[in-house]
Amino acid sequence: MRLLDAIASPADLKKLSQEELGQLADEIRQLLIEKVSATGGHLGPNLGVVELTIALHSVFNSPNDPIIFDTSHQSYVHKILTGRADQFDTLRKKDGLSGYTSRAESEHDWTESSHASAALSYADGLAKAKQLSGNGSDHVVAVVGDGALTGGMCWEALNNIAAGERNVVIVVNDNGRSYAPTIGGFARNLTRLRDQFAQIRIQPGYDEVMQSGKKTLKSLGWVGERTFEALQALKAGVKHQVVPTEMFSELGMKYVGPVEGHDLKALTNAFQYAWQYEGPLIIHVATEKGHGFAPAVNDEADQMHSTGAIDPVTGEALAATPPGWTAVFTEELLKAGHERKDIVAITAAMAGPTGLVPFAEQFPDRFFDVGIAEQHAVASAAGLALGGMHPVVAVYSTFLNRAFDQMLMDVGLLGQPVTFVLDRAGVTGSDGASHNGVWDMAISSIVPGSRIAAPRDPARLREEFSEAIAIDDGPTVVRFPKGAVAGDIEAIERLDNGVDVLRVPEELAESADADETLEVLIVAVGTFAEAALEVAEAVETDGIRCTVVDPRWVIPVSKDIAELAVQSDLVVVYEDGIIRGGVGSAVAEALSAAEIDVPVRQLAFPDVFPPHASRGEILAMYGLDAVSAAQQVREWALGLADRDDSDASDASGTSDASGTDGGAGNTSLHVVNEFR
Amino acid sequence: MRLLDAIASPADLKKLSQEELGQLADEIRQLLIEKVSATGGHLGPNLGVVELTIALHSVFNSPNDPIIFDTSHQSYVHKILTGRADQFDTLRKKDGLSGYTSRAESEHDWTESSHASAALSYADGLAKAKQLSGNGSDHVVAVVGDGALTGGMCWEALNNIAAGERNVVIVVNDNGRSYAPTIGGFARNLTRLRDQFAQIRIQPGYDEVMQSGKKTLKSLGWVGERTFEALQALKAGVKHQVVPTEMFSELGMKYVGPVEGHDLKALTNAFQYAWQYEGPLIIHVATEKGHGFAPAVNDEADQMHSTGAIDPVTGEALAATPPGWTAVFTEELLKAGHERKDIVAITAAMAGPTGLVPFAEQFPDRFFDVGIAEQHAVASAAGLALGGMHPVVAVYSTFLNRAFDQMLMDVGLLGQPVTFVLDRAGVTGSDGASHNGVWDMAISSIVPGSRIAAPRDPARLREEFSEAIAIDDGPTVVRFPKGAVAGDIEAIERLDNGVDVLRVPEELAESADADETLEVLIVAVGTFAEAALEVAEAVETDGIRCTVVDPRWVIPVSKDIAELAVQSDLVVVYEDGIIRGGVGSAVAEALSAAEIDVPVRQLAFPDVFPPHASRGEILAMYGLDAVSAAQQVREWALGLADRDDSDASDASGTSDASGTDGGAGNTSLHVVNEFR
Repeated sequence: MRLLDAIASPADLKKLSQEELGQLADEIRQLLIEKVSATGGHLGPNLGVVELTIALHSVFNSPNDPIIFDTSHQSYVHKILTGRADQFDTLRKKDGLSGYTSRAESEHDWTESSHASAALSYADGLAKAKQLSGNGSDHVVAVVGDGALTGGMCWEALNNIAAGERNVVIVVNDNGRSYAPTIGGFARNLTRLRDQFAQIRIQPGYDEVMQSGKKTLKSLGWVGERTFEALQALKAGVKHQVVPTEMFSELGMKYVGPVEGHDLKALTNAFQYAWQYEGPLIIHVATEKGHGFAPAVNDEADQMHSTGAIDPVTGEALAATPPGWTAVFTEELLKAGHERKDIVAITAAMAGPTGLVPFAEQFPDRFFDVGIAEQHAVASAAGLALGGMHPVVAVYSTFLNRAFDQMLMDVGLLGQPVTFVLDRAGVTGSDGASHNGVWDMAISSIVPGSRIAAPRDPARLREEFSEAIAIDDGPTVVRFPKGAVAGDIEAIERLDNGVDVLRVPEELAESADADETLEVLIVAVGTFAEAALEVAEAVETDGIRCTVVDPRWVIPVSKDIAELAVQSDLVVVYEDGIIRGGVGSAVAEALSAAEIDVPVRQLAFPDVFPPHASRGEILAMYGLDAVSAAQQVREWALGLADRDDSDASDASGTSDASGTDGGAGNTSLHVVNEFR
Repeated sequence: MRLLDAIASPADLKKLSQEELGQLADEIRQLLIEKVSATGGHLGPNLGVVELTIALHSVFNSPNDPIIFDTSHQSYVHKILTGRADQFDTLRKKDGLSGYTSRAESEHDWTESSHASAALSYADGLAKAKQLSGNGSDHVVAVVGDGALTGGMCWEALNNIAAGERNVVIVVNDNGRSYAPTIGGFARNLTRLRDQFAQIRIQPGYDEVMQSGKKTLKSLGWVGERTFEALQALKAGVKHQVVPTEMFSELGMKYVGPVEGHDLKALTNAFQYAWQYEGPLIIHVATEKGHGFAPAVNDEADQMHSTGAIDPVTGEALAATPPGWTAVFTEELLKAGHERKDIVAITAAMAGPTGLVPFAEQFPDRFFDVGIAEQHAVASAAGLALGGMHPVVAVYSTFLNRAFDQMLMDVGLLGQPVTFVLDRAGVTGSDGASHNGVWDMAISSIVPGSRIAAPRDPARLREEFSEAIAIDDGPTVVRFPKGAVAGDIEAIERLDNGVDVLRVPEELAESADADETLEVLIVAVGTFAEAALEVAEAVETDGIRCTVVDPRWVIPVSKDIAELAVQSDLVVVYEDGIIRGGVGSAVAEALSAAEIDVPVRQLAFPDVFPPHASRGEILAMYGLDAVSAAQQVREWALGLADRDDSDASDASGTSDASGTDGGAGNTSLHVVNEFR
């Protein structure tokens, strides 16, 4: 029988011997490789924290001692130890186990997936709350990667945690990687510590830790067994693990480490020390991403940070990935790099996934990885632009949220030519709520002078990226989704102001009455063009005629859209983003400013955080797949046609300038249903 | 004759002797006190950097060596030295001298006002650009306060600057203050350095600096006079100024300091050293905010960080400040603090201006100043809420931009009860583009589950704040403007879903034809209620009838608004925010979702950064004062009435479901004018 089967909660862990804990680690590693290779997921990071997580749960008392995982893609082992080992077949699937911590799943999960570098801030807040509510002797543990420490939020949090005297234990899971190898002066310092550790395993810092430990224990008034154990722990483990660093002690924070991250005994000792220490403490743990699975350890790109389904023995991907949007961007960026010396590229620790590696290889001087530091990525881009460069900031759509202020104040206000290339825009799916890229158009369009392109196909990506880097007086955005590209969709006509007409309705039969038809203009944003064409085909009847256009540049709203709108009875904007402040909303604002009062409807995401599921499932969930969308457009059109009829029959007229009162009767239900 | 009168550019400074530079400092200090006491402005910070700025410009060659001031409210001396001394009578006035650096004013100004902590990122970017364009031997200087170093952006930038080998000179202007005294572990470290400096002015670090300096000079291949001068400088000045700190050197960055910030000779020496040093360098300068003006130095609250007009001798304010919005909030927060133990308050280094000081005094355990660190303020609030508290984050509206991602991912996604109290919301005026609080409603409303209140008067602020802290399942926002409060505006009626009716139109005369009247619904957001009532009075005629409502909670859009809208011919939303994604836009989205197609018009800020001017001037500039707004509403109403008439006469009918085609003819001009 597996030891694992007897672990229903962390309490069960405390019954095991060190040897049994080691066996448990092997079982967990086996489970991870078997399950995650089938479902896909963050295999490398979780293989790296098997011992670390076991040791944490064997020492601390979760959930009274909350354990908070930064970003939380490395929480699989934690899930296994907190009663969820049997759910891994459903990992990242609809209604299945989340790939991140999830408050709905367990009392041991304190957060949902967030962006990197937030865990220390949560921990600071939780520790403050514990102190205020009389539980200040509990320890709040934050597990954070060395990569995330390059993010400014961590600095802000460290500065506050260090100034307090609360029991915050910061476990730095140092695998030398962000996603890519961690960059910057701070990483150099951590690396220096790791190297020193490798060279000299017995360090002079021992005495200092001993003294401090004793002092702490004394100040706690602890005697007896626990004290004894703590001193033993110090002797056995921490003794070997102290390399002096001033970095943290100058902030006023105790530093312990580096601790060998796959040595359960050493980890347990260090955490026992932490559990008895009063005040903020950093424990620096040196781990290996992918530990115990050769294909992951040997994966030079990212040590299997996040994989699809793979062979559990060889690590080979089971399905070939077709060339995607990212690859098209890579080609165009390289081309631009060859043509123009002022093109520079910036990534926030994700050169691989955003397609910058070939550029970095060919133009190393013009490539900058700033770490997990989106704020600096954008503000330093403003600085590069002030110095005459045209920076291309390549980032996932959702991570742009971190740099909204910089896009507004540092790029927008200075009117600098910075091109933001947003990968993974729109619904991404299985990574869950925080990784969907549905906010970028709403926030970018707030920036005065911003211009946003949403290419519908590879040909348009090439064209619009090229247009974007030709703009020299303000920020430009080019956004595209995750995944494979389909074929190009050629336009019937390009209008004077750049809008592509993708479909015009059938010629009216001679017998038809033009007054009886309803003209629908579908404005398709980006890759929703294909679905929009399907919608139009499905909706078009003798009474409903559909035009489909792709604005190409969705912000600012083109004059072409206005000119088409005045010839329409209904404008539907169909976009892979949110309703609130989205492109549909911008179209409505622009039409309103021009006093064009044609009804506008939005097919976009409502005011919710979607759960994790596949992209297709999420689209269907919110009525954004082509079939649901067609049904909705038909209903809207019929609603307007009914109203039109009722107006026509209401020959006496009312105080009705725009046909609205006619709709009042049948909209009251909507009012009740749809307003919060 | 004043030496000042001979200074047209930094080049003139280089002709002066050390003694003359000292005299110049006195003249500049005199000018600042005289001029800024009359106009108001950032007196304290600028008095603190007189010598620092003179020394910078006497050593570096601006603009080839760019000098970037963080936030740049401390750039007055820089302005004086770069030919703008005679414009100080117009400081912060419409068409006058900006209170910040301004690219339009001078080639020596590289940036506009931004938010704190951005300067190092600009400098990193600029230095990269200089290197790429073959000007890597120039030095990029960033002047940053110790307070701004608590912001995460600085950490991100330091981490990158340290890893590079470019000539970035970071001048830490350490006055021990953010706005309030700087907090956190890092500040403690700086303070320790300052204290050591005060105790032991000759430090062992001298030799190290000497060696490094020599090595640098050698590597540059410099000989002759400049080398000699540099070595002299080292002997004379830097010798006394090196306290060892590992903080920066562990990042890989050279640290020099602390330098006495009002000793021109010491400053000049340190900067000459920096000018000849190759690679990134930090110079820690200890300054005194308000130096040389006793009323500022002795001002315990904030050392005259920013003042209105004052007496140039006593420092007394010339006009008494009437109690403002902030004071009302302070009272309510105190009340809540007494009633509920779970209420905690958080500030990002601005306890005074956001009205938190009395709360901090009465409930010190429940008050947290996190430093200039809005990201941490919000994410640690999420942590506090996870621990059972109800945090009130009090921040200026514009600074919420820095924490958009945290509001979305850390508060919104976790559904935590955090109340954001946004002071200085809407147009603030003389602080210029970056300090207007016009974005908060657009960005907060993106957060699923957010609720936003915009009180119209003090009574509503009390009521809505109290409602906000009673909400326990997600973020709430209460926003109010800068300045004095007017009297309360009582409602005629509160509707079922919380909307206050402030005005109903006159009873229709018996002779009137209801069909001929146009019903206008004015939705007034926050303090625009008063102007909205004026607009209604001005607009109302026999043919146009105006209802004015205050939604109180502007997000989510109330059902009451929908029910009123179906009885209206025109809905006008009048708000102290932006059009793009603003409340007007949210009202249009909600009506569209309910298929209520009454025309919606927005009276709000267009897609621009307003210049600095008084609030009233800016409102007038964008047609948002009551007189302009009334004119606009009248035009809109008449446009609709005309269209109605033309529809009525067009008996044959067109393919017109909503009266839009009738308007097409007279809107084409708008289309051309108003679309970008």
